[in-house]
Amino acid sequence: MVELPAVPITLEGSCVLHQMFHIDWASWKKLAPEARQAAAKEFSTLLAGWEHSAAYSLLGHKGDLLLLHFRPSFADLDRTQHQLAQTTLHDFLRPSNSYLSVVELGLYESSAKTYGALAQQGIEPGTAEWDAGVREVVDRQSRAMSQRLYPAIPDARYLCFYPMDRKRGEQVNWYTEPMNSRQQMMHEHGMIGRRYADQVRQIITGSIGFDDWEWGVDLFADDPLVFKKLIYEMRFDRVSAIYALFGPFFLGQRIPAASIEAWLAGQSV
Amino acid sequence: MVELPAVPITLEGSCVLHQMFHIDWASWKKLAPEARQAAAKEFSTLLAGWEHSAAYSLLGHKGDLLLLHFRPSFADLDRTQHQLAQTTLHDFLRPSNSYLSVVELGLYESSAKTYGALAQQGIEPGTAEWDAGVREVVDRQSRAMSQRLYPAIPDARYLCFYPMDRKRGEQVNWYTEPMNSRQQMMHEHGMIGRRYADQVRQIITGSIGFDDWEWGVDLFADDPLVFKKLIYEMRFDRVSAIYALFGPFFLGQRIPAASIEAWLAGQSV
Amino acid sequence: MVELPAVPITLEGSCVLHQMFHIDWASWKKLAPEARQAAAKEFSTLLAGWEHSAAYSLLGHKGDLLLLHFRPSFADLDRTQHQLAQTTLHDFLRPSNSYLSVVELGLYESSAKTYGALAQQGIEPGTAEWDAGVREVVDRQSRAMSQRLYPAIPDARYLCFYPMDRKRGEQVNWYTEPMNSRQQMMHEHGMIGRRYADQVRQIITGSIGFDDWEWGVDLFADDPLVFKKLIYEMRFDRVSAIYALFGPFFLGQRIPAASIEAWLAGQSV
Amino acid sequence: MVELPAVPITLEGSCVLHQMFHIDWASWKKLAPEARQAAAKEFSTLLAGWEHSAAYSLLGHKGDLLLLHFRPSFADLDRTQHQLAQTTLHDFLRPSNSYLSVVELGLYESSAKTYGALAQQGIEPGTAEWDAGVREVVDRQSRAMSQRLYPAIPDARYLCFYPMDRKRGEQVNWYTEPMNSRQQMMHEHGMIGRRYADQVRQIITGSIGFDDWEWGVDLFADDPLVFKKLIYEMRFDRVSAIYALFGPFFLGQRIPAASIEAWLAGQSV
Amino acid sequence: MVELPAVPITLEGSCVLHQMFHIDWASWKKLAPEARQAAAKEFSTLLAGWEHSAAYSLLGHKGDLLLLHFRPSFADLDRTQHQLAQTTLHDFLRPSNSYLSVVELGLYESSAKTYGALAQQGIEPGTAEWDAGVREVVDRQSRAMSQRLYPAIPDARYLCFYPMDRKRGEQVNWYTEPMNSRQQMMHEHGMIGRRYADQVRQIITGSIGFDDWEWGVDLFADDPLVFKKLIYEMRFDRVSAIYALFGPFFLGQRIPAASIEAWLAGQSV
Repeated sequence: MVELPAVPITLEGSCVLHQMFHIDWASWKKLAPEARQAAAKEFSTLLAGWEHSAAYSLLGHKGDLLLLHFRPSFADLDRTQHQLAQTTLHDFLRPSNSYLSVVELGLYESSAKTYGALAQQGIEPGTAEWDAGVREVVDRQSRAMSQRLYPAIPDARYLCFYPMDRKRGEQVNWYTEPMNSRQQMMHEHGMIGRRYADQVRQIITGSIGFDDWEWGVDLFADDPLVFKKLIYEMRFDRVSAIYALFGPFFLGQRIPAASIEAWLAGQSV
Repeated sequence: MVELPAVPITLEGSCVLHQMFHIDWASWKKLAPEARQAAAKEFSTLLAGWEHSAAYSLLGHKGDLLLLHFRPSFADLDRTQHQLAQTTLHDFLRPSNSYLSVVELGLYESSAKTYGALAQQGIEPGTAEWDAGVREVVDRQSRAMSQRLYPAIPDARYLCFYPMDRKRGEQVNWYTEPMNSRQQMMHEHGMIGRRYADQVRQIITGSIGFDDWEWGVDLFADDPLVFKKLIYEMRFDRVSAIYALFGPFFLGQRIPAASIEAWLAGQSV
Repeated sequence: MVELPAVPITLEGSCVLHQMFHIDWASWKKLAPEARQAAAKEFSTLLAGWEHSAAYSLLGHKGDLLLLHFRPSFADLDRTQHQLAQTTLHDFLRPSNSYLSVVELGLYESSAKTYGALAQQGIEPGTAEWDAGVREVVDRQSRAMSQRLYPAIPDARYLCFYPMDRKRGEQVNWYTEPMNSRQQMMHEHGMIGRRYADQVRQIITGSIGFDDWEWGVDLFADDPLVFKKLIYEMRFDRVSAIYALFGPFFLGQRIPAASIEAWLAGQSV
Repeated sequence: MVELPAVPITLEGSCVLHQMFHIDWASWKKLAPEARQAAAKEFSTLLAGWEHSAAYSLLGHKGDLLLLHFRPSFADLDRTQHQLAQTTLHDFLRPSNSYLSVVELGLYESSAKTYGALAQQGIEPGTAEWDAGVREVVDRQSRAMSQRLYPAIPDARYLCFYPMDRKRGEQVNWYTEPMNSRQQMMHEHGMIGRRYADQVRQIITGSIGFDDWEWGVDLFADDPLVFKKLIYEMRFDRVSAIYALFGPFFLGQRIPAASIEAWLAGQSV
Repeated sequence: MVELPAVPITLEGSCVLHQMFHIDWASWKKLAPEARQAAAKEFSTLLAGWEHSAAYSLLGHKGDLLLLHFRPSFADLDRTQHQLAQTTLHDFLRPSNSYLSVVELGLYESSAKTYGALAQQGIEPGTAEWDAGVREVVDRQSRAMSQRLYPAIPDARYLCFYPMDRKRGEQVNWYTEPMNSRQQMMHEHGMIGRRYADQVRQIITGSIGFDDWEWGVDLFADDPLVFKKLIYEMRFDRVSAIYALFGPFFLGQRIPAASIEAWLAGQSV
């Protein structure tokens, strides 16, 4: 019998960059008021001109400011970060972290169906026919899910971001689990998320080949306690309890575009 | 038979931020005496105006000053740290660490009872009826335990703070242990704490989704040796010996609000 | 029966240095325009004079600029980095990472054949005859593969670089796997790479004895999404799923030699 | 049958702080000679006034200066570090590490005897009678061992300091080993130390609840090679081979109080 | 039957310090030419006056300059680093790493013979007679091998340095392996080294009690590719494949004493 591919079909959408910065408040406050206002204005104008960027005030010492950028391509992200580096405000920012990834939808259920159907027709993995069959699914689904692939940044007041891996341990190894077992675990995992769908919006990005973890998770909610409820409940499902490896967590409060100058002037918003 | 949820019911209270700072003593001492006094006064006035904040002198090189803030919401915490960043003293503080979490009471015993009773009535997990039944318990218990959920910062002279995880190893995994086994271990663990109750006050905060560890533990005592006695004894109970993973430990000596200016002026207090 | 060597025959080619730098944009921008232009010119001239060097704009906070150097010898690499350190631009670069390695072709299939043939002739490993037999293969193959051993830096727009190890765990240990099992796994691994050959160019460098990981992987492509597709698919093959340990990932966008001065002047290219 | 406590009886003595510093030699050397002499004098006077403090020159890049303080209480340690921070010399010190702990004697043999005897009398762990029985042993032994609990800092020329843990692995877990097995292993471990007693003085401090490791080990000897002999031999005993987890090692050469000013002036002592 | 010691007999020789530094090229280049020349001269004179010290240009970002010192005692090493700290050049060096160790010869074969012979005579480990018997071997062998214990620094053009441990895992533990098994594995390991003896010179130093790893390995060769060949081949022998844990690798190119001033002036040498 033909061995079906172990890798699920994925769809890719917007390219995403998280930038975390410390603000050198001491130096910033030493700037003459007009210079400081001009710099804040320059930055807020740039930010307002970016269609899919948002600013968050980070809680804790991992950074003061998080900028989140969604772009059509890596070239656009590169341009964004290069533009930012030329601003006056950037001279007072100290990069503390970042994350580079791409919006990803993992089609576990479609993959099983598609691979099965192609095999049924006697088509073998790795052939041009197989690739065409898979591409057809990718194209169709990408069109159907384009809103989820190229989302606007949700308006919610709080952001929770963390990167994660699936474990490849000596006895516990996600990548040697059979496809149907992975599909089943991902399904259970998704069912929990679905129950929180009206309280929290989730965007998954893939970063294999781009950054140090395999996926990034962005959660958006108006009530940050929901992040804890959701993630704690998920921690007991099989895919998280057994296979999840978590990176650092970042918690940010949205700074509305209209308030960024006030916030940089030291006002709470 | 219906599978009961693995996640215990938790109650959430105050939002908590620990901020650890190095003081740039060299620059601070170079300030003109009046400027230094004014800055110390500005800070002590701010601190005095915060109802639930406290300052500690840290022992060792992980920081010089720890500020502990309890607030009703994350928005309040964000405002607190932003206000602090605008002070003159802050220009001489170098953030070295922090911790963001929420006071949490884990109701292992209530959970078992509640889940059992709901199932007994034929109610299924995930349904609106189930959620209502759980919410009823949460609301009732939150009212009953409001003093523990929104505590004042204890007056004790010493603080011991550390974050921790429950292990998810290849063979030893807290999150795949059955609920009744976890409940039993937590009970034994709690019995040790109870015997120290007159010597040490413990506040547990949850940080899943907020920071890099799952829980933060704050211990307050007048005799710091009690921290060692308590934690050493607990290290042999099952839940700690087998499942606990500890982060860094911070030991601070309370700086009374009335002494903070003297302390910043270099006097021991 | 004679025990054959476990170590595969490898061919070595160009010596390779990756240099990652943060740019101190704040100080750089403070330079007088003529001084800045002169410094950019000095650097671009140096870069243009190096036959096998390339510059990349890094995405994220791990660095702003990646310089990739291929040289005939370590002495040449040492000269290159020393020359760079003497430039004015270097005063505004902060080294954040680097990688030192040598282009390597691992001849698993040739090794099995050669070792078998020599043993067949009654020649024993470790003898001068054996070494001569192996050297004959190395010399012949080095000549045949000289273009792959001393490659030009591919022209592709994007670079993905990461270092990696083969695991030596308590139960999973690449270095105690029999040669034929390793050969089989490397073959399967190579077959995936081959299917991507028209979209991505791969250069493997060995770094045992030179740097902290065992190998470095450089991927070159015009479409960076292909990096993710390729590496994700490979992650499910046996050698990666079970034996691969990955270091940090770096993603860079090529800065054409003709554009480096503009890029340093803050223009996107 | 009654379950006896797993935690051994420990005695606590002096509170101990290790402070490791880099010296900013470049800035220090730029000080005007008189200012530098005055600062050195101020520091040496402070050091001489502390009854139980000593200074060591560290070998290697982990620091230049190690200060070791033994004090009756944490409040005294806090006062010491705060006093030091107010000196001029401190403006040229960069804290690189530290360790906070308490002199500890672990009474494995007494514990077994005491627990057995109390149980024999029908007294149950956790009762007031049990606690009184244990306290009686603690008080008696603390008096008998007061010189070991509140030691002077040995005069030896070299100091070796390192922190350590006992492992809590998935299969190898010190904290789930039966008391008599731990007692036996600690006894064998102690027998090795005893054979080196005339060459090396050992002071064990406990740091559970105070710092990131469970114990600190200070070894004092005139011949530093003895540190290697002793620790290498111990590494093969069961408690070290199987259960020990070691932190960083620090090696310092005592700077006699009378020479500290000369040493700070750049003279070797 | 008497249990023989598990620890092998070792001989100790020169005390060794590796110092790795970044050079603050930007500040160094800003020095007035005469001041820079004077500082380079001061350093090269000091270096020339040290009988057993050598300088290497490091490849990559882990440092720019590595100084290697062999001395009769730790006191001499302490004096060397203190002298260096007083030079003008040192104000432009930023310590990035270091390693403190002692030349060590592990006498696995002698140990087995000596322990056996002493036991044969009915002498028991730990007795004065036993110690005298061992000391007799140590003294005799130290005299016989004094050239290997107190070596000159080899003249080779390249240095490869890395620290390493033997694993103490849950199932794989070097320190619980029987002596004869360890002896056999070390023998096989040594046989590989012997085949490279004309191309690479190896000096093993022990650092238990002195630094964070158990051993340091220095390899010296004119052709740096030999480091890779040797270490890769060894990685498949049992003692490395199963028990070795490697620290960071440093690769340096010797700066001849006569060229150090030119090198500091920015010339490649």
